[in-house]
Amino acid sequence: MSFLAPHEQLERIKFGTAEFINDEEMLKKLKRSKEKNQPLKIKFGADPTRPDIHIGHTVVINKLKTFQELGHHIHFLIGDFTAMIGDPSGKNATRPMLTREEIDENAKTYAKQIFKILDPEKTEIVYNSTWINKMTPADMIRMSAQYTVARMLERDDFTKRYKTGVPIAIHEFLYPLTQGYDSVALKSDVELGGTDQKFNLLVGRDLQGAYGLEAQCVLTMPILEGIDGIHKMSKSLDNYISVVDSAKEMFGKTMRISDDLMYRWYELLTEITPAALAQLKLDVSEKRKHPRDVKVNLAKFLIKRFHSEAAAAAAEEEFQRIFVNKGMPDEIPVFEVFAESQLGVCALMVRAGLANSNGEAGRLISGGGVQRDGQKLADPKMRWDLKSGESFILKAGKLKFVKVVVK
Amino acid sequence: MSFLAPHEQLERIKFGTAEFINDEEMLKKLKRSKEKNQPLKIKFGADPTRPDIHIGHTVVINKLKTFQELGHHIHFLIGDFTAMIGDPSGKNATRPMLTREEIDENAKTYAKQIFKILDPEKTEIVYNSTWINKMTPADMIRMSAQYTVARMLERDDFTKRYKTGVPIAIHEFLYPLTQGYDSVALKSDVELGGTDQKFNLLVGRDLQGAYGLEAQCVLTMPILEGIDGIHKMSKSLDNYISVVDSAKEMFGKTMRISDDLMYRWYELLTEITPAALAQLKLDVSEKRKHPRDVKVNLAKFLIKRFHSEAAAAAAEEEFQRIFVNKGMPDEIPVFEVFAESQLGVCALMVRAGLANSNGEAGRLISGGGVQRDGQKLADPKMRWDLKSGESFILKAGKLKFVKVVVK
Repeated sequence: MSFLAPHEQLERIKFGTAEFINDEEMLKKLKRSKEKNQPLKIKFGADPTRPDIHIGHTVVINKLKTFQELGHHIHFLIGDFTAMIGDPSGKNATRPMLTREEIDENAKTYAKQIFKILDPEKTEIVYNSTWINKMTPADMIRMSAQYTVARMLERDDFTKRYKTGVPIAIHEFLYPLTQGYDSVALKSDVELGGTDQKFNLLVGRDLQGAYGLEAQCVLTMPILEGIDGIHKMSKSLDNYISVVDSAKEMFGKTMRISDDLMYRWYELLTEITPAALAQLKLDVSEKRKHPRDVKVNLAKFLIKRFHSEAAAAAAEEEFQRIFVNKGMPDEIPVFEVFAESQLGVCALMVRAGLANSNGEAGRLISGGGVQRDGQKLADPKMRWDLKSGESFILKAGKLKFVKVVVK
Repeated sequence: MSFLAPHEQLERIKFGTAEFINDEEMLKKLKRSKEKNQPLKIKFGADPTRPDIHIGHTVVINKLKTFQELGHHIHFLIGDFTAMIGDPSGKNATRPMLTREEIDENAKTYAKQIFKILDPEKTEIVYNSTWINKMTPADMIRMSAQYTVARMLERDDFTKRYKTGVPIAIHEFLYPLTQGYDSVALKSDVELGGTDQKFNLLVGRDLQGAYGLEAQCVLTMPILEGIDGIHKMSKSLDNYISVVDSAKEMFGKTMRISDDLMYRWYELLTEITPAALAQLKLDVSEKRKHPRDVKVNLAKFLIKRFHSEAAAAAAEEEFQRIFVNKGMPDEIPVFEVFAESQLGVCALMVRAGLANSNGEAGRLISGGGVQRDGQKLADPKMRWDLKSGESFILKAGKLKFVKVVVK
């Protein structure tokens, strides 16, 4: 293939990044790559202890895709060396020791997910145990001679822990170094990560210099906010969309985000250009486009990426049928209820304020005036198992809506 | 052999130490050793980059001798692992990288010197590369997980450097750890060192605990003052007696020390008991003994140890002949001169103030009135090569003495 002009490539590479270090070196690399018709080596490190990724993680993966589209070569690095050790200090329960089999299984899961975005042909999965395990104790000493204690303590989390007296074990200094040494072994040209990875990426850059190699450029991507629009997307905050969520879940969760967050997601999760994004904002603010439709398109984009075009179309259709064509208001009152087995539907309607009595509820159902998620209910005697986490829309008559959320 | 009672052993072990950690554990070890008729393993680490030892170093070696006399087994450890790496940060010119051959050569030199004190039969020379080089990167990580950054920074020199912004490379944290790991590999019962080694010895003690072994006891010996009586004995301060100094040099240097220092040297360098030392001090203070004679005995002890009984006797005899029988004053003026080739003896006498002219000097020599170190000079035309470092006494007539010191 022939490469785009270095400046054009750089513009696409830098779009949406939080920080890029640095233009001058990158242009030099891009020029040489084009002249020699040789792809650059792009490094991205993944933690094999957490194989399930959410769309927040895909912000960086989207940028890897850009590099692939520009013709470059991705090293998708599985940090199995550290994963196989676990945390030998025994203090960090979140870093368990994994077996070779677990790591391979996690790597497969990870690959399956990222290959919904990346081209497997242009992606090489590498394991850092390949070279780290070959190091001798003398190699380890030489590696750790390249970095000072003071610089390591400058890393935000270390600074905080050292100041507050929370112990830092010495091997924790060796992890960023081995991770940086990966860049030496791979001779990577660029390394990507979230802004929270900046320190580690710079260690790689520094170590390459110390080992007499050309230093890698460092690219950080912003951390995506979760559906609450406030906190970083994370599993523990339950404000995430998993890449293995169903099309319906993806659609529903995306429709819930704020308009501001919608633009942010467009920027970081789709392939929109800066100009197109500006136009979109203008169209909404001048009422040529309804924000709900813009959100629908975002949801469809995500479903298309992680499921299929057909699934995206089906999800939209269902949404239109239930929420739009049936005159669903923009704001639906939420009725929260605890999980319960065999709850009578009429009782639920009374509690949710959709009927004044079981009798009224029953008559409404029998008359065909009650829907659950757009489906007419037929039997007033039906009982439901309400399971924690599920939610659905109950509609009574033409105007009464309640979103039932089971806690 | 049968071992002495644990309490008796402990008393001999602790005599003259700066610090001992700790009695209770040691008694337990000594009891078990006696019951099982099994010697304890005593560890002493030597730096193979500096093979020439001075008598300051022998303070610890004397203590090793005590352990040998008590029936225990010495591991004389050559730290060749670190010596073969050198200082990979390139910042410490005093820690060059050594080849295998140089290390073996240094170890031989070292052994030759210590075996003037220690019994080779009860001394095992071991090299830490034997086990350190077998460690995998994962082993290194596990080892460094056992110690915290904060504790390492508590070491005096690290504290000072960190506070004043003098860089500490991370591998410098790994050296005390590998040194401590030696105690794990050797399963040592006791480790000895100078007071300046206390931190490192404690790392060994801690690491053994972390690896589920019984912790070693730690014994530190005071640092010996040099012949100036003020500074620690060291080559760079030129206030030392090397164990390979000639008998004459040893005698001369020892006779120069102060009376206070003389007692200190007795305590740390000879096999004197506390009671005998107290008696010696009393005898001197009550004028039953002349301090010069006490110093002569100290000098003879050192020469006996590092040369032979005959050499000690000869050195004393020469001293008596020149300095005592010939009416040498206690204080001789020193005349410093730069090294020079073929300097006429008469010119030197004039310069040194022993004669007013070359003619007078020549007449004195011809008349048999001039001596060099007690030997009469015969020829006024003789020329000497004055070499840097040498010194001798010139005597002209009955009363004029000068100590010529060549710079």
